[in-house]
Amino acid sequence: MPHFLSTQDADFDEGFARLLAMKREDSPDVDEAVGRIIADVRTRGDDAVIDLTRRFDRLTLTPDTLAFTEDEIDEEIARVPDADRAALERAAERIRAYHARQMPEDAEWVDPEGATLGWRWTPVRAAGLYVPGGLASYPSSLLMNAIPAQVAGVERLVVTAPTPDGKANPLVLLAARLSGVETVFRVGGAQAIAALAYGTATIPAVDKITGPGNAYVAAAKRRVFGRVGIDMIAGPSEILVIADGDNDPDWIALDLLSQAEHDESAQAILITTDDGLANDVARAVEARLKTLERREIAGASWRDFGAIVTVNNLGEAAELADMIAPEHLELCVATPEALADNISHAGAMFLGKWTPEAIGDYVGGPNHVLPTARSARFSSGLSVMDFLKRTTIATMTPGALKAIGPSAERLARSESLEAHGLSVRARLDRLNEQ
Amino acid sequence: MPHFLSTQDADFDEGFARLLAMKREDSPDVDEAVGRIIADVRTRGDDAVIDLTRRFDRLTLTPDTLAFTEDEIDEEIARVPDADRAALERAAERIRAYHARQMPEDAEWVDPEGATLGWRWTPVRAAGLYVPGGLASYPSSLLMNAIPAQVAGVERLVVTAPTPDGKANPLVLLAARLSGVETVFRVGGAQAIAALAYGTATIPAVDKITGPGNAYVAAAKRRVFGRVGIDMIAGPSEILVIADGDNDPDWIALDLLSQAEHDESAQAILITTDDGLANDVARAVEARLKTLERREIAGASWRDFGAIVTVNNLGEAAELADMIAPEHLELCVATPEALADNISHAGAMFLGKWTPEAIGDYVGGPNHVLPTARSARFSSGLSVMDFLKRTTIATMTPGALKAIGPSAERLARSESLEAHGLSVRARLDRLNEQ
Repeated sequence: MPHFLSTQDADFDEGFARLLAMKREDSPDVDEAVGRIIADVRTRGDDAVIDLTRRFDRLTLTPDTLAFTEDEIDEEIARVPDADRAALERAAERIRAYHARQMPEDAEWVDPEGATLGWRWTPVRAAGLYVPGGLASYPSSLLMNAIPAQVAGVERLVVTAPTPDGKANPLVLLAARLSGVETVFRVGGAQAIAALAYGTATIPAVDKITGPGNAYVAAAKRRVFGRVGIDMIAGPSEILVIADGDNDPDWIALDLLSQAEHDESAQAILITTDDGLANDVARAVEARLKTLERREIAGASWRDFGAIVTVNNLGEAAELADMIAPEHLELCVATPEALADNISHAGAMFLGKWTPEAIGDYVGGPNHVLPTARSARFSSGLSVMDFLKRTTIATMTPGALKAIGPSAERLARSESLEAHGLSVRARLDRLNEQ
Repeated sequence: MPHFLSTQDADFDEGFARLLAMKREDSPDVDEAVGRIIADVRTRGDDAVIDLTRRFDRLTLTPDTLAFTEDEIDEEIARVPDADRAALERAAERIRAYHARQMPEDAEWVDPEGATLGWRWTPVRAAGLYVPGGLASYPSSLLMNAIPAQVAGVERLVVTAPTPDGKANPLVLLAARLSGVETVFRVGGAQAIAALAYGTATIPAVDKITGPGNAYVAAAKRRVFGRVGIDMIAGPSEILVIADGDNDPDWIALDLLSQAEHDESAQAILITTDDGLANDVARAVEARLKTLERREIAGASWRDFGAIVTVNNLGEAAELADMIAPEHLELCVATPEALADNISHAGAMFLGKWTPEAIGDYVGGPNHVLPTARSARFSSGLSVMDFLKRTTIATMTPGALKAIGPSAERLARSESLEAHGLSVRARLDRLNEQ
């Protein structure tokens, strides 16, 4: 049974605070082991990567076989059923169209003092995308990471994807092909992250690493951060559905379960103004849990972290939503746009009952790499911006320097930074001589 | 003596690689101590903050005196000389005008399938800005952190600024007043960061923490990252000046020294096409080092990490600049725009000989919080974007769902995520019934 709460309960605030504070992840402390792996890759390069791949993935590689060849990729891709290929192409196309609109503009203007100011965006030169192996090897995630990089104009895009026991995922290779990936290395774990950050003879170093992974991958990304850029460290999935009484309980139940089935630590919450719907959804979830393929995972998530909250009105729902700051937010209400305007903190919003969250995981267009664990309060999902950086630009004329230089000099002296002040003063003196 | 290199040297590549790899910072390992301080603040709140402030800042506070009162701020500000006040106001105005142009636009469009897609930017609700105490207590840094937050629309902006032995910096308080800061708490160190991240009875928790600080502050920011957002962890300052022969060596020397005077670990590099200028700048630096107030710091930085590199042409200079990816880049050449177009990786560029870097520290307009230690390869300076986050939005119509839903269902099944597929299928079935 999930947690049931109502804003009419006398102890609602305490119960809701407990729900928010729930610790859903026990991250095993692998930091030391990861430190050793990174040091090993830095010292021994390819040899270390090959040894570690033999040990963890039971796969024997050589520098020549670390990467898939074009022929190998062709061969794997040929096995993808036509309908899967068409669906993946559709997804790639829609994700590309959405992200193309995110490209920011350069700016340049002349200010009243005559100074030219502005900024310029340029892509990261090389990016490495991590794709997990085994069960969580999702071609959709590869698209969601690689396409923004491709749209940003990243020159060199490589993927590392472990192939335990040599088993590759043909759809992942097709996704790589569809999104401009240059090379796919069949390595994973902390050793792949270390190779991407520091480079080996065969795996060239990149400037930015993105993509999900297990505790080892997450710890390695934390450790190499600063040497290279990384995306967020994603926690378990979350969904918040806000629904009025005019909904099919089975649809809502499936939407909740589509997060719950990801992970026993995932969290699915329903907030509703309708007590009847609350009960009906609870029953519909139980019914679906009888037959769902991943019922063990989804059932555990729903039992431990699921919640149904009844509220008096949508205003209350909006307030709670901002406190939850969910990764995914579905608004299954009559006028979802109005409700959306009242909510500030969410990674992605899905408006109206015809927009199940799963659409956003694949073909909606927006990115599915989104802030978890309430971090939507201060961060955003993956985007083209993650693969760009901005250089600010300033050009003074003699006139502009005359106008604003004295203020700079004054502030420099007030901060006891004499050379700062002198560098401005030397130029002002020259202008005054002229 | 700084390092002298020339691209004509047979061993240039090795020498330049050594320059790039130079370890300039020895960060003392304070992580354990910081862990204890954070735990203490989480457990004992105000009491811990007060005890630690007594111990580290030799200042006895109570919950009532943790923050400056309005009257206290008025009193301190009254001591600011008029010229300093005017300069600070000038700086605030120009920084505000520049950052106002950074506000990104929301987007919404209807795609060919009839789906409405887009995104929306919203500000972080509450931000905490850290201002160091003592020598590095820079009012300009407060402006550079607070104004972007204010422009972004952050509702609640607080500052923590230690006042060792009770000594406040009136200019810092004036800068806070000029940039919409609500409260200034006279606490610092890891205890201030912990209080901002977790909240105490008197210091309310925020969602984002920015601002420079010592090793304790940096370690605390790393530890609370995830609970709240943080800006970058800044390393020691850097400047790269690219100059042709037509320059005043003294100006270039002062520009180099204006970074070197920050910190013994700062790095100032000159790349020039002119051997004569190389020698003249070296001499001019030595001459200025005889009288400069901070000559011990600047001298150590220049001796240990300074470098003068002579190159055959500006093409070589651009290549080296991209490898250095400097925090500050001055282009003192005849056509700086053309050279700027050939360089991708730099935090901020200053074009032409009338644009000393120090202008950008105070009154230029662009932010002076910039990526260091080669991280301009993958990251940008502080901006309005650091105080905003983006929520993506998608609204399907029945028609749009019919068009793209089957692809989502197909991909969900290929990833063995049954509930994802069913959440789409249940809706498609309803549409097919109709």
